[in-house]
Amino acid sequence: MSKLFIALLFIASISTSAAQSKLQVNANRLNSSIQKLATFGKNEAGGSDRIAFSEYDIEGRAYVMELMEAADMEVSVDFAGNIIGKRNGTEAGLKAIAFGSHIDEVPNGGDYDGPVGSMSAIEVIQTLNDQKIQTKHPLEVIIFSNEEGGVVGSRAIVGQLTEEALKVKSSSGLTQYEGILALGGNPDRISEMERAPGDIAAFLELHIEQGGNLDREGLDIGVVEGIVAIEWWEFTFKGFANHAGTTPMNMRKDPMIPAAKLILAVNEIVKSFEGAQVATVGKIEAFPGAGNVIPGEVKLNVEIRDLSSEKIWEIYEVIAMKAKELAAESGTEVSVEHTEVASKPALANPEIQAVIENASKELGLSYKYLPSGAGHDAQEMANIAPIGMIFIPSKNGISHSPEEFSSPEAIANGANVLLNSLLMLDEKLQ
Amino acid sequence: MSKLFIALLFIASISTSAAQSKLQVNANRLNSSIQKLATFGKNEAGGSDRIAFSEYDIEGRAYVMELMEAADMEVSVDFAGNIIGKRNGTEAGLKAIAFGSHIDEVPNGGDYDGPVGSMSAIEVIQTLNDQKIQTKHPLEVIIFSNEEGGVVGSRAIVGQLTEEALKVKSSSGLTQYEGILALGGNPDRISEMERAPGDIAAFLELHIEQGGNLDREGLDIGVVEGIVAIEWWEFTFKGFANHAGTTPMNMRKDPMIPAAKLILAVNEIVKSFEGAQVATVGKIEAFPGAGNVIPGEVKLNVEIRDLSSEKIWEIYEVIAMKAKELAAESGTEVSVEHTEVASKPALANPEIQAVIENASKELGLSYKYLPSGAGHDAQEMANIAPIGMIFIPSKNGISHSPEEFSSPEAIANGANVLLNSLLMLDEKLQ
Repeated sequence: MSKLFIALLFIASISTSAAQSKLQVNANRLNSSIQKLATFGKNEAGGSDRIAFSEYDIEGRAYVMELMEAADMEVSVDFAGNIIGKRNGTEAGLKAIAFGSHIDEVPNGGDYDGPVGSMSAIEVIQTLNDQKIQTKHPLEVIIFSNEEGGVVGSRAIVGQLTEEALKVKSSSGLTQYEGILALGGNPDRISEMERAPGDIAAFLELHIEQGGNLDREGLDIGVVEGIVAIEWWEFTFKGFANHAGTTPMNMRKDPMIPAAKLILAVNEIVKSFEGAQVATVGKIEAFPGAGNVIPGEVKLNVEIRDLSSEKIWEIYEVIAMKAKELAAESGTEVSVEHTEVASKPALANPEIQAVIENASKELGLSYKYLPSGAGHDAQEMANIAPIGMIFIPSKNGISHSPEEFSSPEAIANGANVLLNSLLMLDEKLQ
Repeated sequence: MSKLFIALLFIASISTSAAQSKLQVNANRLNSSIQKLATFGKNEAGGSDRIAFSEYDIEGRAYVMELMEAADMEVSVDFAGNIIGKRNGTEAGLKAIAFGSHIDEVPNGGDYDGPVGSMSAIEVIQTLNDQKIQTKHPLEVIIFSNEEGGVVGSRAIVGQLTEEALKVKSSSGLTQYEGILALGGNPDRISEMERAPGDIAAFLELHIEQGGNLDREGLDIGVVEGIVAIEWWEFTFKGFANHAGTTPMNMRKDPMIPAAKLILAVNEIVKSFEGAQVATVGKIEAFPGAGNVIPGEVKLNVEIRDLSSEKIWEIYEVIAMKAKELAAESGTEVSVEHTEVASKPALANPEIQAVIENASKELGLSYKYLPSGAGHDAQEMANIAPIGMIFIPSKNGISHSPEEFSSPEAIANGANVLLNSLLMLDEKLQ
């Protein structure tokens, strides 16, 4: 037993958090393993083609399992193709604290989205081994299968992966069903692996921000308040399709006009509310859609995201009222369809948020609380466990791109917060 | 020789225009022939499927030729499939005054666009026969082939039908080349039938307005000033495609915003100029066009029509300047491409316009001068002859639709103006 470890144990006995705050991962080893993982599926553009179920994914997973085994974890692949690495705890009867992320990427993606959280999770175990620290709770590192193509692995764990979803073709060309088989899973037995609420004591995920807040503000850590809910509506303005040459300007019922005004209104309205909510018109179509015909109909999609579903609907109501006004003043009609891509918000557990904040503070790192606008495996895990998420800055907020970049220091900061949060939770949780 | 005819001849000798103003077509016969023509290709929705080159078109054309032959015209089909009906004049060496229109319709079109001018042209000949009036100029009734699918017949006459155009598939499923063959033409010999400037003394076309000006203002006749020029531009706003969930509102470079503002600006700008010019955004597309992605690019089409190409470009310059402003204020970039669907304006001959005005006045009909926002065969004929166009009201300005309607009285008014304008021109022109 090293002197350091004895000292740590001693300090831990008088001040758990202060002692743990000093524990640091091996930043070089961590960044090396991220760089090594990046070689599996690196394309000529400098991007990553390690899409789920591809040969690159399978090679990357083999590397991950090798590292886990070298770190003395008990490694298995579950029926959904998730890689699970277990490490025992010292107190009987406690549920595992789980943490991890994914290593699959979107086509021509980057090297950090997913890998940072995955390799940091393994690095945390390696550091605990190095420091000969045993946690009270068993630990479980989960590397989820096919996150980018529908959070497949995490949905399977929480019992939310439908039969239909298994039939969907993934970016690899294989269906989810075939892909899971290729990873060594068994899609027919997924129901046997589902975990119930309470089966996991807590779930933590470290991830790059996929947005520019931390980078722009020069902050080290994002304490994630939750993963936002998403709602979509399709607005249709109906006017009267007419000859673009023979219909005088003042005799038109052109639905393009209220549609254009609604796009601007959506922007104004969403900004008029306090908070970090966002709204986007990403899609618009005019019918018949010819340059020489005044459109008879214009359809546009409005997406709103926020941590609070209630607030989303409040904002929607203002937008919908504005749409009616715009239709009335332009002699058009408006109808709205709520399209069911909606996902519920997944709030991070407030105590875990506080733990992440404390870990950041004790490591001397700057931080802010913020929502996650993107979906993550943690969002699914929230169905069965209290969750927490740690964000690190992503350069210019870019993700899902070869230009994605987080510095080695930023990654080490994130891994240190993960490590120390985990240790604090090990103390706090029963 | 009827007493009326003797009287007319007498009056004509002292006051040509006053005498001719009294001449009237047989309104019942005219409207019956329009109704009869409508039976060829009538569909269940009450619309007309007499699309060019279809069996209905061929049946309708047979009916037209039957009427022409019954009216003692010398009937032929030229190499482009145009039906030509000739009637001799009394003075040697004069070129023909031509008039006519088309009988083909857009799919699910109406019964008036084209047929009104075509059947009125034949009715004019019948009336002249009834009244035993011989004109000095030879007369030529032209029923143009495939007007709706690219003014094919009139383009052939004036030498503007390209080899490429012949390869284009028409609404019938046949190429223009095949369609012309089906009508009894010979597309390989079209160059032999071209007419040179001066080959025709004048060309007149009666047509429904295809716009709501006359109907709304309760006027009988439109004296067409010309057929407008059409110019198209594609504006592209480039921003930065980004994650719709993770990109805060104030960090977006969303090209949808300047695009929406430009749509509104196009409307304001075109209305800020004096005159009857129109501008239309009939087409818009966002890229990638997904509800959960802030678009990286938005493309929209701006069409401007006016009798003056110069004015069109003046308006465009204001719009283009506004687009640059909007791009600058939104942190996006804008580029414009002038797409070459542009057609030149075809101005009606001022003397013919005055003749049409006089004929209307003498028939006691109300009228106004106005541009044609839609294209017509007369526009092509303007390449080789002075042209004039007469519009009659179309209910609610609707055309290219089963709801297209012009009253029997309105049609008779138009035919009477055509008849009397023709007789005046016969006197005026050498």
